[in-house]
Amino acid sequence: MKKATSSKISNFSIERLLLYSRTLSDIKRNQKVTKILSTDIASFLNIDSTQVRKDLSYIGKLGKRGLGYFVDSLLNALNSFLYRDKKINTAILGIGKLGSALLGYQPFQKYNIHIVAGFDVNPNKIGNRLNNIIIYPVDELEYIIKAKNIQIGVITTPESAAFGIAERLKNAGVKAIINFAPVFISFADKPIVENIDLSYFFEIARYKIFR
Amino acid sequence: MKKATSSKISNFSIERLLLYSRTLSDIKRNQKVTKILSTDIASFLNIDSTQVRKDLSYIGKLGKRGLGYFVDSLLNALNSFLYRDKKINTAILGIGKLGSALLGYQPFQKYNIHIVAGFDVNPNKIGNRLNNIIIYPVDELEYIIKAKNIQIGVITTPESAAFGIAERLKNAGVKAIINFAPVFISFADKPIVENIDLSYFFEIARYKIFR
Repeated sequence: MKKATSSKISNFSIERLLLYSRTLSDIKRNQKVTKILSTDIASFLNIDSTQVRKDLSYIGKLGKRGLGYFVDSLLNALNSFLYRDKKINTAILGIGKLGSALLGYQPFQKYNIHIVAGFDVNPNKIGNRLNNIIIYPVDELEYIIKAKNIQIGVITTPESAAFGIAERLKNAGVKAIINFAPVFISFADKPIVENIDLSYFFEIARYKIFR
Repeated sequence: MKKATSSKISNFSIERLLLYSRTLSDIKRNQKVTKILSTDIASFLNIDSTQVRKDLSYIGKLGKRGLGYFVDSLLNALNSFLYRDKKINTAILGIGKLGSALLGYQPFQKYNIHIVAGFDVNPNKIGNRLNNIIIYPVDELEYIIKAKNIQIGVITTPESAAFGIAERLKNAGVKAIINFAPVFISFADKPIVENIDLSYFFEIARYKIFR
C-alpha cells in the first residue's frame, strides 16, 4: 500500500525523519518530557524549524500550531511511517573487510534489520560462519535469496564484480540493493538502489574544517 | 577565512552540493555538454529544482535565470566552495574490520583524502602495514597526530573505547572526528564531529520498499 503523502518525499526528508525519530527516542529516555515543539527539535538538531514542520507534515496532522507534539504519539507516528516495525532480511555479497565489518555490525538488530546470509567466491571463506552467519558460495545466490526471503542485497564486492552481482540480485528478486562498491548502480525500475560513498563523510568534514 | 554565505548552510545542502559536483563531473565526462539548466540537474537527481537553485545560490551568482550554467564554471565553483582541492590527512583509530576496510578504501585518494596512520592497542597489529599505512600504538596518538599533521580522526574502535579516544583526539588538536562507533559523540565547540550510523542506509531502503 502506497501512502499518498509519501510519493514525492526526498531522500533528505526521509533521512531527517529518521533523525527526528532517533532524537525523540533520546530525548524521551534522558529528559522524560511528554511534549515537544518543532522549534525544540529544530534547535536540538540545528535545522530550520520550517523544515522540521514541513518534514513532519508528511506523516500527517499531529501537532497544533504553537502547542507542540506529544513525544509518544509523534514517535509512534514516525516509526510507523518509516516502517521501523517491519523486519528486513539482508545478505552481504562479498565478505572482504567491509563485508565482514557489516556482518558484525551490532546496531542493525536494534532496528529490526537482520543479516541472514553472506556470499563469497573464495573457497576458504565459503562454509564458514561469521557472527553466526553462514558464508554461502555465490553460485547459490538465487536459491538462498528465495529460501531465506532476503529483501535487501548489500554489495561489498570489488568494483569489477559489482555490476554482475547487482544484475543477479535483480533477477533473484531482491527489493533493494545497498551498494558500497565504488561504482554507480542504477536500474530503470526495480530494485531500488542506494549507492553509498564513504568519501562523502570525509568531504563534509573537510568543508566544515575550512569554511 | 569564513565565507559569509556559508554560515547557515545545512549538512543536507552540503551533501547535495557534493552530489551536484559528482553528477556534473559524470555529465561532463559522458555527454560532453557545456551548458546545463538547474531543472536538468534536478530531474537527473530527482530533487526539486527550487532546492537545486537555492543550494547553488550558496556558492554565488553563477547562472542567469532560464539560461542555465556553464558546466565547467559551475563545477569549478562547486569544487572550490567545497574545498575539494585541499589535501586532508586522516588517521584511523581502531584497526578492526571496519578500520581495515577504511584503510583500503580506494576512492579516498581521488578526493584528496589521505589516510596517513592507523592506531590500535593490539600488539599483534602494531607495527604492521596495511595498504602501506603503518599501525601505531595508541599511546603515540598525540605525537603522531602532530608529527603527521592529521586533521581528521576516524573512530572505528569498539563502543566502550570511543569516548576516551574522542577526548584524546580533541586534546591532540584534530579539527574533526568521524565516528563510526555506535555512540553519539558531540563537543560543545571543537572538534567537529560527524556521527555515522550505517543502519541509516538500511532504514532508508526499508522505507522505500514498503511505502
